[in-house]
Amino acid sequence: MPRVYVTRHLHFSAAHRLHCDQLNDQQNQTVYGLCNNPLGHGHNYELEVTVVGEPDPVTGMVIDLKKLKDIVEKELISKVDHKHLNHEVAFMRGLVPTAENIVVAFWQILKDKFEPCRLYELKLYETPRNMAVYRGE
Amino acid sequence: MPRVYVTRHLHFSAAHRLHCDQLNDQQNQTVYGLCNNPLGHGHNYELEVTVVGEPDPVTGMVIDLKKLKDIVEKELISKVDHKHLNHEVAFMRGLVPTAENIVVAFWQILKDKFEPCRLYELKLYETPRNMAVYRGE
Amino acid sequence: MPRVYVTRHLHFSAAHRLHCDQLNDQQNQTVYGLCNNPLGHGHNYELEVTVVGEPDPVTGMVIDLKKLKDIVEKELISKVDHKHLNHEVAFMRGLVPTAENIVVAFWQILKDKFEPCRLYELKLYETPRNMAVYRGE
Amino acid sequence: MPRVYVTRHLHFSAAHRLHCDQLNDQQNQTVYGLCNNPLGHGHNYELEVTVVGEPDPVTGMVIDLKKLKDIVEKELISKVDHKHLNHEVAFMRGLVPTAENIVVAFWQILKDKFEPCRLYELKLYETPRNMAVYRGE
Amino acid sequence: MPRVYVTRHLHFSAAHRLHCDQLNDQQNQTVYGLCNNPLGHGHNYELEVTVVGEPDPVTGMVIDLKKLKDIVEKELISKVDHKHLNHEVAFMRGLVPTAENIVVAFWQILKDKFEPCRLYELKLYETPRNMAVYRGE
Amino acid sequence: MPRVYVTRHLHFSAAHRLHCDQLNDQQNQTVYGLCNNPLGHGHNYELEVTVVGEPDPVTGMVIDLKKLKDIVEKELISKVDHKHLNHEVAFMRGLVPTAENIVVAFWQILKDKFEPCRLYELKLYETPRNMAVYRGE
Repeated sequence: MPRVYVTRHLHFSAAHRLHCDQLNDQQNQTVYGLCNNPLGHGHNYELEVTVVGEPDPVTGMVIDLKKLKDIVEKELISKVDHKHLNHEVAFMRGLVPTAENIVVAFWQILKDKFEPCRLYELKLYETPRNMAVYRGE
Repeated sequence: MPRVYVTRHLHFSAAHRLHCDQLNDQQNQTVYGLCNNPLGHGHNYELEVTVVGEPDPVTGMVIDLKKLKDIVEKELISKVDHKHLNHEVAFMRGLVPTAENIVVAFWQILKDKFEPCRLYELKLYETPRNMAVYRGE
Repeated sequence: MPRVYVTRHLHFSAAHRLHCDQLNDQQNQTVYGLCNNPLGHGHNYELEVTVVGEPDPVTGMVIDLKKLKDIVEKELISKVDHKHLNHEVAFMRGLVPTAENIVVAFWQILKDKFEPCRLYELKLYETPRNMAVYRGE
Repeated sequence: MPRVYVTRHLHFSAAHRLHCDQLNDQQNQTVYGLCNNPLGHGHNYELEVTVVGEPDPVTGMVIDLKKLKDIVEKELISKVDHKHLNHEVAFMRGLVPTAENIVVAFWQILKDKFEPCRLYELKLYETPRNMAVYRGE
Repeated sequence: MPRVYVTRHLHFSAAHRLHCDQLNDQQNQTVYGLCNNPLGHGHNYELEVTVVGEPDPVTGMVIDLKKLKDIVEKELISKVDHKHLNHEVAFMRGLVPTAENIVVAFWQILKDKFEPCRLYELKLYETPRNMAVYRGE
Repeated sequence: MPRVYVTRHLHFSAAHRLHCDQLNDQQNQTVYGLCNNPLGHGHNYELEVTVVGEPDPVTGMVIDLKKLKDIVEKELISKVDHKHLNHEVAFMRGLVPTAENIVVAFWQILKDKFEPCRLYELKLYETPRNMAVYRGE
């Protein structure tokens, strides 16, 4: 049976501030620059969720992408959309909200939600020019 | 010698209906929802064809992308562009035209057409938000 | 008071066939080419709805774009998404579904729905390369 | 002499909260919904600055777009990029930072900066799906 | 009868150098900066051709966009694609190939080619961030 | 520790000509077609640089993408932007500037510049429709 990767794009808008409590103010400023601005800034995040599996021999689908979208919106997007990622997202408590940390945290939320398919990759665009990818490695 | 991946984007517009003869009407409606609408709907499909090989030491090309484009248009695009995928495409007869089934069927058509290069990946966007990828696995 | 234009992008997927009952088969083939294929083909249509007005001095909004989106989805998108435009859309009965005719028909549906704002422009992409614009002129 | 419109795209990331002091909490929630979230959210704003004029008969340019970019970055982008629009932007003090109010406020900053060319239009994308346009009318 | 605007996107790749014979080397360097580099550089130009007219009451088309594309490719694109705009394009002889001058020169080529429709606007992207628009004014 | 891929998009505009000194004029014309035009043509190249590593447990970053951008602009972009790739780029001397050869040459420049992170992939768009990818294999 062929293995096919299917991807759904989703998006959310959120505020964040790059600031690490283990660093002092001067260090935070040096490490994060403009992104350390105390009142935060924000992004239109674009998220691509890729699942891999064998198309069902009857339905021809690896997974119903409408259902995948509903799951991701319920389990993830509803918790981060129009939120401040430093202060309002329980599963990110204590994490500096870099794209790298966000995409790994999202993986923990989503990794078991698509069985019997397997979550293959999360791609997170912070801007159209910057992105982070995690594959559970 | 380095191995380089080269990709060409192509596109076609087609109608399809998600409907499986092995399911009854109620089941088809449940599985496919709006996509089961009897008169069909359609998409602007975007196809990315990726071939892998070593650049020729003289020409500097893995494959002439103009030739690759001509091959894909002759062997594939001409058979699906402005067609109804359920009724007018011989090599898809009997297949539910999900993105997953389409991309696997396209692979069969294209897999031997670029020798001595190897077809590496087909990426098919059904919409800008949904896509399926097949690598011949 | 300043006049500001606000735009919301929406999308739908539909099948259509370019065929005119006033022309014979040969003429239809000559005029519409591949688009006259009897079983139809389809597109991912992108629609940009632009409304013009003065921002409310209290709320700072010309119109709530969330409400605008809900209105367009209820009055228009729900009637064309995943449909065959030649056969299943009452307000397009008897019209050849060219982008030009579609965008004018959409205008009739939407023109009075955003008062006291004024509908300024509808832009309809049939593909990323072709579009039609109507401003009620 | 021909009149030509030239446009430069720029971008910035910022946080904002839609909240009006003239409304009570319940009203703010009703009017702005998720966008009223107290800790704010944010966007990757895309700004298109269009200037109109006659190409200089010697240089062939309406305006040096590199200079236009430098002016907009110095006068505007540096004041809003990676900022919280409700709290850190002097020229927006007291304004609800809707796309409509932002684009009109930006116009005041930029309108006299490109003489002898004339600022023709500012187009502000709050997200890839929502935008506001102001032409100084 | 409604007036509808229809647009077709086309593209070409070309080299150019911004250099004015009426200026000395130092002046050219000051005015054009990097773009004055003697050996030239190049762009993927994107061109949007917009024509306005009334949809034909029988065919529903303002103009056959396939024919419009063929005309623009024959009359214009074939003369500039994969060319050096300073040296190989007869109708641009003596013009500094700024986006402004190019778009006005293109207008002269295309303005009478779509009758009885009227050419409304040419939009030329030199890069995804810079563009020039001409409407024959 | 998780392994995360981070990507930064950059761009440059350049002229090039596909021509191989080992081939005669007729052969060059046959192999490269329009791209062999003696005076060259050009492109807006888009480059995606992907680096892989473990996010720093304190800063949450695999690499500071601002620093990555500065390195790529200093070491690479400044040497190719607004240049003629056949004549003005020392590290490409003697190479036919196909996308394949360019992306491999870029790899040599960048491969050791991001330690302790590892350069994972370079993706080079010659046009929005054609690209080449190299992973150092």
